Amino acid sequence: MTTQQLHQNILDKKSFLCIGLDADLNKIPPHLLATEDPIFEFNKAIIDATHDLAVAYKPNTAFFEAYGLKGWLSLEKTINYINHMHPEIFTIADAKRGDIGNTSTMYAKAFLEDLNFDSVTVAPYMGKDSVEPFLAFKNKFAIMLALTSNEGAFDFQTKIVDGEELYKTVLKTSKTWKNSENLMYVVGATKAEYFTEIRKIVPESFLLVPGVGAQGGSLQEVCKYGMSKNVGLLINSSRGIIYASNGNDFAEKAREEALKMQQEMAALL
Amino acid sequence: MTTQQLHQNILDKKSFLCIGLDADLNKIPPHLLATEDPIFEFNKAIIDATHDLAVAYKPNTAFFEAYGLKGWLSLEKTINYINHMHPEIFTIADAKRGDIGNTSTMYAKAFLEDLNFDSVTVAPYMGKDSVEPFLAFKNKFAIMLALTSNEGAFDFQTKIVDGEELYKTVLKTSKTWKNSENLMYVVGATKAEYFTEIRKIVPESFLLVPGVGAQGGSLQEVCKYGMSKNVGLLINSSRGIIYASNGNDFAEKAREEALKMQQEMAALL
Repeated sequence: MTTQQLHQNILDKKSFLCIGLDADLNKIPPHLLATEDPIFEFNKAIIDATHDLAVAYKPNTAFFEAYGLKGWLSLEKTINYINHMHPEIFTIADAKRGDIGNTSTMYAKAFLEDLNFDSVTVAPYMGKDSVEPFLAFKNKFAIMLALTSNEGAFDFQTKIVDGEELYKTVLKTSKTWKNSENLMYVVGATKAEYFTEIRKIVPESFLLVPGVGAQGGSLQEVCKYGMSKNVGLLINSSRGIIYASNGNDFAEKAREEALKMQQEMAALL
Repeated sequence: MTTQQLHQNILDKKSFLCIGLDADLNKIPPHLLATEDPIFEFNKAIIDATHDLAVAYKPNTAFFEAYGLKGWLSLEKTINYINHMHPEIFTIADAKRGDIGNTSTMYAKAFLEDLNFDSVTVAPYMGKDSVEPFLAFKNKFAIMLALTSNEGAFDFQTKIVDGEELYKTVLKTSKTWKNSENLMYVVGATKAEYFTEIRKIVPESFLLVPGVGAQGGSLQEVCKYGMSKNVGLLINSSRGIIYASNGNDFAEKAREEALKMQQEMAALL
């Protein structure tokens, strides 16, 4: 998918909502546990109920690896289901990978070619040669951690390096890498006041924004400071949508929460 | 495993060799491709040929995820084989994971409980709450990236933060985290001159050292500057051992290379 197509989908759906598919067997509706593949059945129901309201789905690989072989199968079925039923939806493997060059190439192929995700999240600590292998795929993206939504973000990301915060150095440095036009960035909504500065460095890049809702970030604030000409935002919600209910009505309630967010977004576009 | 047991194994075997199990279908001996599970067969042969010379094995998860479901099965079989046949050997899931707290917990359980690795490598960029979940397991370890062996290490890790390199801030900060005694660190052999400074911060911690051999690091230099009272080093070699030959004699040749390293190590202990 190109960013132009992603932008068009946002305009068509009046939404820049990304739904995090983080299915946890301890939290999904108990009646699903009797099915052969509860994780996939849960994801499928969420996708069926929300696909017209979301422009992106983001399965976090941890929630699949936690179930070993069965989990990996659920991940394959989930991405195949999205790609088959809703090929216009942007898909993100939230894997936060990063390793030396030849090893990053293995990860990149696994997620961007074999599983056919549109994008994968990556960690910046190992630098250029750990990220560039993810940028070598036409119309695919690496979404690099810049400023995350968790408390630990202040441990290193906001430390001052050469007169500015580390996350700014990370953003600026990454723009010099090969195929850097295939980069997007993770920026937490809990730090909305930082978006103005970030937009000075990456005015047009898409930003994947976790932390609205459960983690306390404000959608209005993020849009005020973070929206670009082509919108440039994918606002993620996971728990607030997928665990809106754990009864038989979980998919319906998930749709209600997604609809609330989509309507807020439509008003902000 | 405790660090005392690991130290004892090092003394018993006169070795602090870690072998990286990074099997790539394009590089393993072609005759293995006809078997049902070439990756596992390759790893099994390497383990059978080297287990008396190595104190640790380190499968890198990328080399398994690259083969999807089949790859994950090969990973399970590989770790189960090591744990069953050679329970005294320290095992490292080289996964370089790190995410917000509840998600890191999923990864930690997957690798340290379900797959029953002794340790897992983790990335520091997201800070305290992304790493602490990996430290909550008795006699298990998180091996955190500090100063890596690749070129990109100089992009961010050696930037000056509060008057010292970022990797030193990472080391110092991590010592304040809960259960920090369960931390080990990745320090590349290609930067042997840095070991003196690192040992001032973490005098006793075990360091996992990639980059000897193929990447140009010197075993003698690393030992000179990095060895601690309890040895405190695990020197990793992957390609130099496992791809010593890609003929029928691959396991035998792997043993020869491992033996050379073990003999060098014995002389340095």
